Amino acid sequence: MTDDTRAAAPAELLVCIKCRKGQEMPEDARRPGAHLFDALAARGAPEGVSITPVECLQNCDAGCTVALRGPGRWTYVYGGLDAARDVETLLDGAARFRDTPDGLIPWRARPEHFKRNCVARVPPPTLPTSEETPHG
Amino acid sequence: MTDDTRAAAPAELLVCIKCRKGQEMPEDARRPGAHLFDALAARGAPEGVSITPVECLQNCDAGCTVALRGPGRWTYVYGGLDAARDVETLLDGAARFRDTPDGLIPWRARPEHFKRNCVARVPPPTLPTSEETPHG
Repeated sequence: MTDDTRAAAPAELLVCIKCRKGQEMPEDARRPGAHLFDALAARGAPEGVSITPVECLQNCDAGCTVALRGPGRWTYVYGGLDAARDVETLLDGAARFRDTPDGLIPWRARPEHFKRNCVARVPPPTLPTSEETPHG
Repeated sequence: MTDDTRAAAPAELLVCIKCRKGQEMPEDARRPGAHLFDALAARGAPEGVSITPVECLQNCDAGCTVALRGPGRWTYVYGGLDAARDVETLLDGAARFRDTPDGLIPWRARPEHFKRNCVARVPPPTLPTSEETPHG
């Protein structure tokens, strides 16, 4: 899977399947996060994008929550997602993310939901810089 | 730097130096995020932890914001940080993160600020699972 020769490296859409969207619900109830994962998997991922169910992404009060990441790219965490409303938006956004070399979708090309519901982002790993203090 | 032979792999504390803590301020003013980075660097990182200044982590309204990460570990993003109050807490938390194999500080050992100000977390990269749909 990692010897993919497409121009862009594969992208991964992580979906928190434990998300309750901040709601009280019985322990054995099927959770909104699981519904979102199921809806995405049923619709099918764009080529070069994998959809991975994960444990809690700790954005519990503002779920459902996903993360987009890939080798050499910024990782973006998005919240406020709903299985009944946002599947197409998410898959479109994942394809746009996949098409970037660095995870930075140009602002004007970014889905509206992404603009308003970014929880955090984290840069790709880099080599140490002169400003770090590894042995303070 | 990457051939470190300590039991735990090095940990990295990313500090958003662009953070305004949601405040209006002149474009050329020194930002709270830069103050936080300076205070951390002046105090000095624990052994095996590097402190890296980074561009916006997009938790702007609830900054200052940092991320803790390392090879094979969950990445944690924390907000609500203040240069005048939280330097010791952050460095203590970074050392506790470094001492874990997977980034999961046991709940009872987690600094109080970390318990209440976790913005999001992202799992370490893993191999594809049977549940992914790479070519939907």
